[in-house]
Amino acid sequence: MWFENKMMRTFRCRLQQKPGELGKLLETIGDAKGFLGEIKTIHMGRGTVIRDLVVFADNAEHMEKLIAAVDGCTHAELLEVRDEVLEMHQGGKIAVRSRYRIDTLSQLRRVYTPGVADVCLKIQKEPGLVRRFTSIPHMVAIVTDGTAVLGLGDIGPQASMPVMEGKASLMDTLVGLSGVPILVDTKDVDEIVDTVAHIAPTFGAIQLEDISAPRCFDIEKRLKERLDIPVMHDDQHGTAVVVTAALLNGAKMADVELGQAKIGQIGLGAAGMAISEMLMHLFGQPIFGTDLDSDAVRRLEELGGKASSLEEIMATCDVVIATTGVPGLIKPGMVRDGQIVLALSNPNPEIEPEEARKAGAIFAADGKSVNNILGFPGIFRGAIDAGVTDITREMLVAAAKAIASAAGEGELVPNPLEREVHKKVSHAVVRTALEQKLNREDLTGYFDE
Amino acid sequence: MWFENKMMRTFRCRLQQKPGELGKLLETIGDAKGFLGEIKTIHMGRGTVIRDLVVFADNAEHMEKLIAAVDGCTHAELLEVRDEVLEMHQGGKIAVRSRYRIDTLSQLRRVYTPGVADVCLKIQKEPGLVRRFTSIPHMVAIVTDGTAVLGLGDIGPQASMPVMEGKASLMDTLVGLSGVPILVDTKDVDEIVDTVAHIAPTFGAIQLEDISAPRCFDIEKRLKERLDIPVMHDDQHGTAVVVTAALLNGAKMADVELGQAKIGQIGLGAAGMAISEMLMHLFGQPIFGTDLDSDAVRRLEELGGKASSLEEIMATCDVVIATTGVPGLIKPGMVRDGQIVLALSNPNPEIEPEEARKAGAIFAADGKSVNNILGFPGIFRGAIDAGVTDITREMLVAAAKAIASAAGEGELVPNPLEREVHKKVSHAVVRTALEQKLNREDLTGYFDE
Repeated sequence: MWFENKMMRTFRCRLQQKPGELGKLLETIGDAKGFLGEIKTIHMGRGTVIRDLVVFADNAEHMEKLIAAVDGCTHAELLEVRDEVLEMHQGGKIAVRSRYRIDTLSQLRRVYTPGVADVCLKIQKEPGLVRRFTSIPHMVAIVTDGTAVLGLGDIGPQASMPVMEGKASLMDTLVGLSGVPILVDTKDVDEIVDTVAHIAPTFGAIQLEDISAPRCFDIEKRLKERLDIPVMHDDQHGTAVVVTAALLNGAKMADVELGQAKIGQIGLGAAGMAISEMLMHLFGQPIFGTDLDSDAVRRLEELGGKASSLEEIMATCDVVIATTGVPGLIKPGMVRDGQIVLALSNPNPEIEPEEARKAGAIFAADGKSVNNILGFPGIFRGAIDAGVTDITREMLVAAAKAIASAAGEGELVPNPLEREVHKKVSHAVVRTALEQKLNREDLTGYFDE
Repeated sequence: MWFENKMMRTFRCRLQQKPGELGKLLETIGDAKGFLGEIKTIHMGRGTVIRDLVVFADNAEHMEKLIAAVDGCTHAELLEVRDEVLEMHQGGKIAVRSRYRIDTLSQLRRVYTPGVADVCLKIQKEPGLVRRFTSIPHMVAIVTDGTAVLGLGDIGPQASMPVMEGKASLMDTLVGLSGVPILVDTKDVDEIVDTVAHIAPTFGAIQLEDISAPRCFDIEKRLKERLDIPVMHDDQHGTAVVVTAALLNGAKMADVELGQAKIGQIGLGAAGMAISEMLMHLFGQPIFGTDLDSDAVRRLEELGGKASSLEEIMATCDVVIATTGVPGLIKPGMVRDGQIVLALSNPNPEIEPEEARKAGAIFAADGKSVNNILGFPGIFRGAIDAGVTDITREMLVAAAKAIASAAGEGELVPNPLEREVHKKVSHAVVRTALEQKLNREDLTGYFDE
């Protein structure tokens, strides 16, 4: 996401109440390369207006410059600079709430003892009833060791809590699931797998989050094998789903037939590997990949991909996807006429889309709009609604297509806060789950299970 | 709690609208030994009234008899028997909720990226800020392996979820904490300790729940040593706190000086052992204890208690507390004149209070009103508010005294749904925490730390 590393502050300014004043203030901020968020009118006084402006800077130093610029602007008086983000994070962003008020003894007796004993015994006798009489199915563990958080790297589990809470907030807001952050204090693969497996009875699904490669591959694989609930590493498959959706729409806009195209993947970390896997599955063609880490290239080959190089990919591929984290890695001279270039590293891409287009790309985009929020809520909701034990590639592809189809004319991806998008994604997953179950039943001739 | 093993149903009945009809119906239920909960008027028609009666039975067979009795009663027509408890448990009783609505991109940018990155970095630099900017401090893990659930025994982790959700509901309702059920799939002490320790960074405190003795002692001890957040096994210390509160009030009513009394504990499981420990700490006298398990007796001796026998305790102790789970264990002939007898096993006590009093007890009570709900919410809230790393015996004693003092005239313990009680408990814990910190500073002469 482009704004991952941006800093945000709210500037409260008093302006003269005459035409053009706000424009001049915004110009001042623009000249200092500040990016603007929402602008709110706080107070209309006699001759003056007080406004709150949300301002984004690249870093603290840049923010200082923006503050100085506004402070020195003759068209506005800077009253205060607030950190509303910090204010919102105070006390945390989530809470576990009772679905019932418990004010009377008879409510207590229903929600707790003695009523509860009956429910427990029912579940003990018929374990499948947990899905009906407990919160387990709607609880999704959001598990991290804090080793690959946003663009920040290994900041540790507790410092990553605000991100996990953000995911949980979105789970609730967008699809009504209960996201439960689980911060683990170890980076050891065995320990993480054992820990998550031991607490898995609590949850309807497991979302792995911000765990660094290559450990994330092994952790996900082993948990998927060991558990009978859906497990998904969002940074792999959530990202792959959203990138695939963007690619589907981008190719349509550029009138490129992806099934015939030679696709190159530069950078084979968690995201790059999962994107390659999904595109190979979708188009049945090998992906040409490269990475500084030879183990990563070997993993791609094991999945059916082909080892390549930055130069070769740029010179021969019709579609180039870059997820390296190295800004400016792709030089304009490397771009080929008619190429599709998705340079997805945030906050600064491998090549700016404009530059790539100037150099001949038929379509170019960066990672700004390719936000994971589009994927994981609907994918988990669909998997849980369908009651599947695993999230399959087919479900992920269906999710990608649902996201792509929900985008408006000329949009790469839809607005992630549009509830309808998440409903479409979850329905696509449920539909695929039903089809896959049917297929399996077909194969076994309705005799098994 | 007396109603732990009771079964509850709602009977909807149509009665003639004339005096005495309801009374006759209730008599019918009473004759069949059914216990009545609330009675609601649903509809007043022409000549008839429809009422919902909450009816408690000892078990399914008894409930069948009650249904048959009401069905055969000429004073009412049984319209339906509903299981409202099950209805309330559908979909679970808790949910993780976002504290903010996320409807606009600018809200998303505050709650999630980019805003969140700044918060993460702040915490990384100054780890203490997790207390301020995350939900961690108000999240309490409610950990169980499902081995000693209510009176039901080892029903497994998932079947115990309704109880854990009930605790979480009460945490929210009574003190505003976020209880997070954690069901572990192993009974192995090492694995439970490792698992809880690995996910501990997520939480402000750990509540161990319904884990069978003697494993519960070791698990709690090791987690307390290993973690720097409060860890408490509710079935031990929560119970001890509430029983102590009841004993303090009972002794006052009976005009018995507990400091001078010889106290006996029959049954040394999780609850019995913790009660003994607390009373020894409180009165500085050894407790005389007995249990069928010689290891349990040895553990009591290690804590400073004395091995005894059922007969000796009954014959020589001024105060007798029984937590054996064996109904009718104490025969009236064993009760001594002027004895205080707390026979706490549920649903059926070691001796009925009435019987004990007839046999000479100056004061007698059973476990009906001694509900853990009085303890754990305020204890955890206080420990978290005070920011302590451990719940000390002194804090537990303060909690017991606070509960005792909150009971009305002639009441053994206060109403557990009274918010004021929980506030008193948490304040008592905070106050004790402050005193203990002061003491430590006094000892070190303000030079250390």
